Amino acid sequence: MKAVILTIGDEILIGQVVNSNAAYLGRELFSLGIPAEKTITVPDNEKEIISTLKDAFRNYDVVIATGGLGPTHDDITKKCIAKFFKKKFVMDIQVLKHVKEIFSRRKITMPPVNIGQALVPEGSVVLENKQGTAPGILIEKNKKIFCALPGVPYEMEYICTTGLFPYLNRKYKKLKKSVIKQKTLHTIGIGESLLAKRIGDINSIVKKGKDHEIKLAFLPSNYEVRLRITVSAGSQKKAAQLLKNAADIIKRGAGKYIYSYSDSSIQETVGKLLLKKKLTLSAAESCTGGLITTKLTDVPGSSRYVMDGIVSYADAAKVKFLGVKKDSIKKFGAVSRKVAMEMASGIRKRSNTDIGISATGIAGPSGARKNKPVGLVWIGYSDKNVTFARDFIFTKDRLRNKDIMAKMALEVVRRKLLSIKQ
Amino acid sequence: MKAVILTIGDEILIGQVVNSNAAYLGRELFSLGIPAEKTITVPDNEKEIISTLKDAFRNYDVVIATGGLGPTHDDITKKCIAKFFKKKFVMDIQVLKHVKEIFSRRKITMPPVNIGQALVPEGSVVLENKQGTAPGILIEKNKKIFCALPGVPYEMEYICTTGLFPYLNRKYKKLKKSVIKQKTLHTIGIGESLLAKRIGDINSIVKKGKDHEIKLAFLPSNYEVRLRITVSAGSQKKAAQLLKNAADIIKRGAGKYIYSYSDSSIQETVGKLLLKKKLTLSAAESCTGGLITTKLTDVPGSSRYVMDGIVSYADAAKVKFLGVKKDSIKKFGAVSRKVAMEMASGIRKRSNTDIGISATGIAGPSGARKNKPVGLVWIGYSDKNVTFARDFIFTKDRLRNKDIMAKMALEVVRRKLLSIKQ
Repeated sequence: MKAVILTIGDEILIGQVVNSNAAYLGRELFSLGIPAEKTITVPDNEKEIISTLKDAFRNYDVVIATGGLGPTHDDITKKCIAKFFKKKFVMDIQVLKHVKEIFSRRKITMPPVNIGQALVPEGSVVLENKQGTAPGILIEKNKKIFCALPGVPYEMEYICTTGLFPYLNRKYKKLKKSVIKQKTLHTIGIGESLLAKRIGDINSIVKKGKDHEIKLAFLPSNYEVRLRITVSAGSQKKAAQLLKNAADIIKRGAGKYIYSYSDSSIQETVGKLLLKKKLTLSAAESCTGGLITTKLTDVPGSSRYVMDGIVSYADAAKVKFLGVKKDSIKKFGAVSRKVAMEMASGIRKRSNTDIGISATGIAGPSGARKNKPVGLVWIGYSDKNVTFARDFIFTKDRLRNKDIMAKMALEVVRRKLLSIKQ
Repeated sequence: MKAVILTIGDEILIGQVVNSNAAYLGRELFSLGIPAEKTITVPDNEKEIISTLKDAFRNYDVVIATGGLGPTHDDITKKCIAKFFKKKFVMDIQVLKHVKEIFSRRKITMPPVNIGQALVPEGSVVLENKQGTAPGILIEKNKKIFCALPGVPYEMEYICTTGLFPYLNRKYKKLKKSVIKQKTLHTIGIGESLLAKRIGDINSIVKKGKDHEIKLAFLPSNYEVRLRITVSAGSQKKAAQLLKNAADIIKRGAGKYIYSYSDSSIQETVGKLLLKKKLTLSAAESCTGGLITTKLTDVPGSSRYVMDGIVSYADAAKVKFLGVKKDSIKKFGAVSRKVAMEMASGIRKRSNTDIGISATGIAGPSGARKNKPVGLVWIGYSDKNVTFARDFIFTKDRLRNKDIMAKMALEVVRRKLLSIKQ
């Protein structure tokens, strides 16, 4: 079973957009057991698109294309498909209804050009797009599958998970020889090489056999490392067993740093813990500028444990709204253990929550002081029994710092709630 | 002059790595005036690499390959090049010296496998790699250029800027016929199709000529649309003029919605306006959960106009910390014009800033009320002269809603500061 990914659009070729769609499709096709053997990016140019389609359809069993399905004149993918498959366009009533609804919901008159979004090549399977106006278009021919998806990532991913992947799964279920299973563990606050050293060589521990294989991939990004275990085996049972063995080995070496064995984010993990323990939380933020509370409230239902938060960006705001002592700022500086602790206990009392957390640091690019480099952060924690603070030094990049500082504040809460050594 | 980019490596195909090298090369080749017309990713597989090389070399003038030049067994690009060009390997003394130095500096005994890094196809131009052990390899044949680069991004970029790009520049200086220029305009709060309707067909307005061309691309993402204008013309002057004409036409049709003519984000745009007008701002956030203040403080130097912010997630917090009237919440609901206005004026007074903004809405996925669907948001604005609120309806997706709601709050500020109709 051979697949090819076509991404269509000038913006990818000239590097205005990084091709994250290809990465997403590559990853997902791989775990479906239909790995992509080639990825091709072509411009918004009819001749190029059609000749690439021709090659792709000749050489591969599954052809997935993304991009160029929008309503404007530079979107020509659908026209090319119709030409290549020699199909007429027909109006899909369901899609038309959906497109009209999108506009009426926003109380906007639908521009006529959007009617075109409901035109699909005759005989194609139309995959619903609840996230936008362009449906996915799937065509089967000569036992091969072609599918065109919109280029907007969340629209494409929606159609993939609800339409395309289930379709491929049904189609190729009988053909699959080996079972492929994956599991991704999420770690935070430890580097890739140290992590690798702690885990050891997983392949030599879980022995590679004739009919099975284990791969461990380290996927680092900004002080988080995802550990993706991929196993292939002759049966579901064998694959599940191998996956469990591998996860156990990793847990022995790196347990403290793993915040998720599913695909929960750190904010989901902390949210679940707070719900379970019936605790509430509030955050006082300086360098993170609101990102801790933003992350916490990214989780649906977080209103059950997040009441409010304060961004005390200026020193005066720390004193006025959080009860931080002027003296503490004067003596230790705003970025200090003392101020982080006073911020954490201040927000806890003021908001009347069980836990208060705080972050005060130097996000950069400027603002470094003697002994206080860019990337330094103090994270404060306070509950009715204990108040403490921890310091970390991260990068010189402002946005990367804000992100990892906010996550580490949540990680400090996770470790405290689970009685894990900080 | 036609270029093609080949990226080589299983890790890209299975989506373990996002293909940022292709984006880098695409961007740079474009600005060199040798735009890539295709990007192809192939696996670490000899047959595939050679057949793709063959196609590429037949159809394009410049072929740039990255990846697979390392010292380990899965790196086979160099072998494939030698085979394809029918060349023997020779030892490059300079490279050997450099590789040996790298190891001696790190006080590590050089593994013998690294000697292979100094073997290059006979007659090729060797491009120095100060960042690593694999040099770039450039081969000219039949007036066409082939170049292989290592896949590690900073090594590849080093060789590009010090070796490959200067080489291409010298080579094609005389050949360059047309100048290519680009400009990207950023809009918010209007859909792609409505925007297209307002702008009209730019190609028919700025007439396409024999020696020049204009392309307008619509790049939508979550209620923002970037408009990328690309012109090619016979001279710098002509290209600049065309770009200006095109931007003027777009401005006439969609001026109100354009927040940036450079690549500034909405938070940078608002930040610059606040600095210019010497105004300060604070935000009271409910549904956005801190994201407005997070975005504002993503901009270095934002501490000059952002003092603090409040996330009043619970109704009680709105009353306690912002002075929202209990009656207003009871009568109109927390998601209402009245409460948005009271939040905005409340935060302005409490924080003693020139402007207060607020967002109260239903981020979803649940929480809809009668006449108040998921995606509804009220944005409040308050300064010493006026307090008002506007409502918008966005999506059913929580994270997309938070993002666009926070951005629209900033957009409301931008329009007010520039006296643009809301």
